[in-house]
Amino acid sequence: MERVTATYLIETALPIAKAAATLAGEQSSGTFVAVPGETAELKERFAARVERITELETVSTPSLPTGRPPASVYRRAEIVISWPVENFGANLPALVSTLQGNLYELCQFSGLKLRDFDVPPGFAAAFRGPAFGVEGCRRLTGVRGRPLIGTIIKPSIGLSPDQTAAMVKELVEAGIDFLKDDELMANPPHSPFDARVDAVMRVINDHAQRTGKKAMYAFNCSDELDAMQRHYDKIVESGGTCAMMSINWVGMPAAKKLCDRGQLAVHAHRNGWGMLSRHPMLGMEFPAYQKLWRLVGVDQLHVNGIANKFWEPDDSVVRSIRSCLSAEPLGTPLLPVVSSGQWGGQAPETWRRTQTTDLLYMAGGGIQAHPDGPAAGVRSLQLWWEAAVEGLSYEQAMVNYPALAKSAAKFGGS
Amino acid sequence: MERVTATYLIETALPIAKAAATLAGEQSSGTFVAVPGETAELKERFAARVERITELETVSTPSLPTGRPPASVYRRAEIVISWPVENFGANLPALVSTLQGNLYELCQFSGLKLRDFDVPPGFAAAFRGPAFGVEGCRRLTGVRGRPLIGTIIKPSIGLSPDQTAAMVKELVEAGIDFLKDDELMANPPHSPFDARVDAVMRVINDHAQRTGKKAMYAFNCSDELDAMQRHYDKIVESGGTCAMMSINWVGMPAAKKLCDRGQLAVHAHRNGWGMLSRHPMLGMEFPAYQKLWRLVGVDQLHVNGIANKFWEPDDSVVRSIRSCLSAEPLGTPLLPVVSSGQWGGQAPETWRRTQTTDLLYMAGGGIQAHPDGPAAGVRSLQLWWEAAVEGLSYEQAMVNYPALAKSAAKFGGS
Repeated sequence: MERVTATYLIETALPIAKAAATLAGEQSSGTFVAVPGETAELKERFAARVERITELETVSTPSLPTGRPPASVYRRAEIVISWPVENFGANLPALVSTLQGNLYELCQFSGLKLRDFDVPPGFAAAFRGPAFGVEGCRRLTGVRGRPLIGTIIKPSIGLSPDQTAAMVKELVEAGIDFLKDDELMANPPHSPFDARVDAVMRVINDHAQRTGKKAMYAFNCSDELDAMQRHYDKIVESGGTCAMMSINWVGMPAAKKLCDRGQLAVHAHRNGWGMLSRHPMLGMEFPAYQKLWRLVGVDQLHVNGIANKFWEPDDSVVRSIRSCLSAEPLGTPLLPVVSSGQWGGQAPETWRRTQTTDLLYMAGGGIQAHPDGPAAGVRSLQLWWEAAVEGLSYEQAMVNYPALAKSAAKFGGS
Repeated sequence: MERVTATYLIETALPIAKAAATLAGEQSSGTFVAVPGETAELKERFAARVERITELETVSTPSLPTGRPPASVYRRAEIVISWPVENFGANLPALVSTLQGNLYELCQFSGLKLRDFDVPPGFAAAFRGPAFGVEGCRRLTGVRGRPLIGTIIKPSIGLSPDQTAAMVKELVEAGIDFLKDDELMANPPHSPFDARVDAVMRVINDHAQRTGKKAMYAFNCSDELDAMQRHYDKIVESGGTCAMMSINWVGMPAAKKLCDRGQLAVHAHRNGWGMLSRHPMLGMEFPAYQKLWRLVGVDQLHVNGIANKFWEPDDSVVRSIRSCLSAEPLGTPLLPVVSSGQWGGQAPETWRRTQTTDLLYMAGGGIQAHPDGPAAGVRSLQLWWEAAVEGLSYEQAMVNYPALAKSAAKFGGS
């Protein structure tokens, strides 16, 4: 029988082997006392198995409250647990209930983080995965040999459809590859979804007809289910190429329903991700997260960026980018969406650490607040990436390309 | 303009007022630099507002990593922020992106927890809320004047439909009011959803026809969207009265789509909730969580129980029960699902602290592992509740009702 394996970082006052066995029991056939139907045969076939234990450091205070008297020592370990695929079948909510269900509630753990998981090929085969991914998004935008340069319409909230379209006009004329709604902008009374699509796509289609370059606009479809489906239809009918979703709030079944249609690239916004990941001993890590959403079938996934305005360290960002681009039995690579406080100056370090241009590189203020206007902002980002791919450092780039000085003066800080 | 308000517990190295303003800015019109369209008029209409600040204690180490150099002091506070309803409209994913989006990523906070939120009546009116709630679930089961007594089919995973039905037969004959699938049991190859519904409902319908008492069985519908809708249809056609969902993995749009049908009570399983709530300075608290799901329209929501096998302290459980039962402009009260290591002996303390029988009181092992079998387990739970409502303590109950001794000996510990 094929098995799904999951790797956890745990912290516990119990002997590690006992804690691991508790997790395996709780997440398969166990309850707090033995029950009549729990036969040896059933256990053999359906029980989760502890596959590997790697003991790590010990600490003297628990990372999370346990509701139990304090212990003198808490042990950390990386453990690998496996389940037969037969326990859930090709059902993502059931898979996640197994990998990430009540185990976060167990008093036996003072820390528990899902690091990664692997599904066997037979399980992965039940999911198409991303319909577009990196290659499809390049094809839809016609961008080769450099990252897609993108921007977020700002202010996040408050612009009317016409004001949004006016901003889009300036940006597409500036040569932008990609634009998106902010996650705060969905279908509010002052910018109804359909009216915004009409106003924006008129600009994008006109520009494409004149120049052959069609920018991708990610319209934020996040809404109730029927509304999301209408929004998706509206984008398709209007010649758009991308639907955006706040994946943590839309959920897997609704997101997959839209992804399965395969007519639009799906931009997955992970707002809320900090709640799931920021504590080092609680929640989940990005490699697991991106696999779930690859199974759902999204095409683009946010990863923050180097020297971002958020809390996330660069190492973590780099790992997320690699994770999106890794070859796996889970469908085509995802396009990593690099954003948060980006303005171009981070391009050399991004390139140095990832050696890839398979990125959607996003700047909001970094483009729209450029001293010489948005067109200069777009050109500046392209130039920063040319310099980066030549292998220039930040300082060398400034020397070789004097045009970069203005963005550096505005956004580069001291 | 009507406003939504939200209360957060925060921790920050900044002056509290500045940190609060950052949150308000990031979650409405702001980005990391001023942009051209951010006019005074737009800000006036759409900006989030800091409504109240209550400073709390200070700490010397940050609760969460910030990616910034350490500060000498971190201040905690409760803050209230408000947004015009116009920013999102009656759109739950957009509301949540606003209340719980990128703010968990902000380096300005070393702790951030959404405690509660309030929506104005005009917003609440766009949502029906629970179609059944406490009263509807009592009507469907015919249980008055005491909690609904329920159980979870165990082992969680591995039983065939016929084995499940055999267990259901024993339990309905024992007088159980409610049964449910475990969250690990959805639609696996060894217990296909339709076959399980057929086998279980044959037993429940037969028993109802003979005795007039129809137990409610919560079938776990969690699955891909189309499958969830088929599962719901199957339950309706088969005379079932309840659909269960793992709400954190099913997501709001898919859950609401099913809740909106209003033909079945919806049992909301919150597995994964520990990830969202267990750290005292990260995530969200139950009062906010239950409001979101009340807007979605679920009818029953898990709250753990007194002296549970999980980490959650009793105070928190009591607060959750009150929260589900509170009168709010958000539709009818939710039926709190009390579970986790319950066996009846917790009834006196549950009653003492909540003074309500509007509960679905669940025992898995506590019923099925009773020394005299499941029927004795059900009777024992009913008896514990009779004693509890008479105002007896645990010890008094044991004196007045000698039949309780067996359950206490088996489950009561030392």
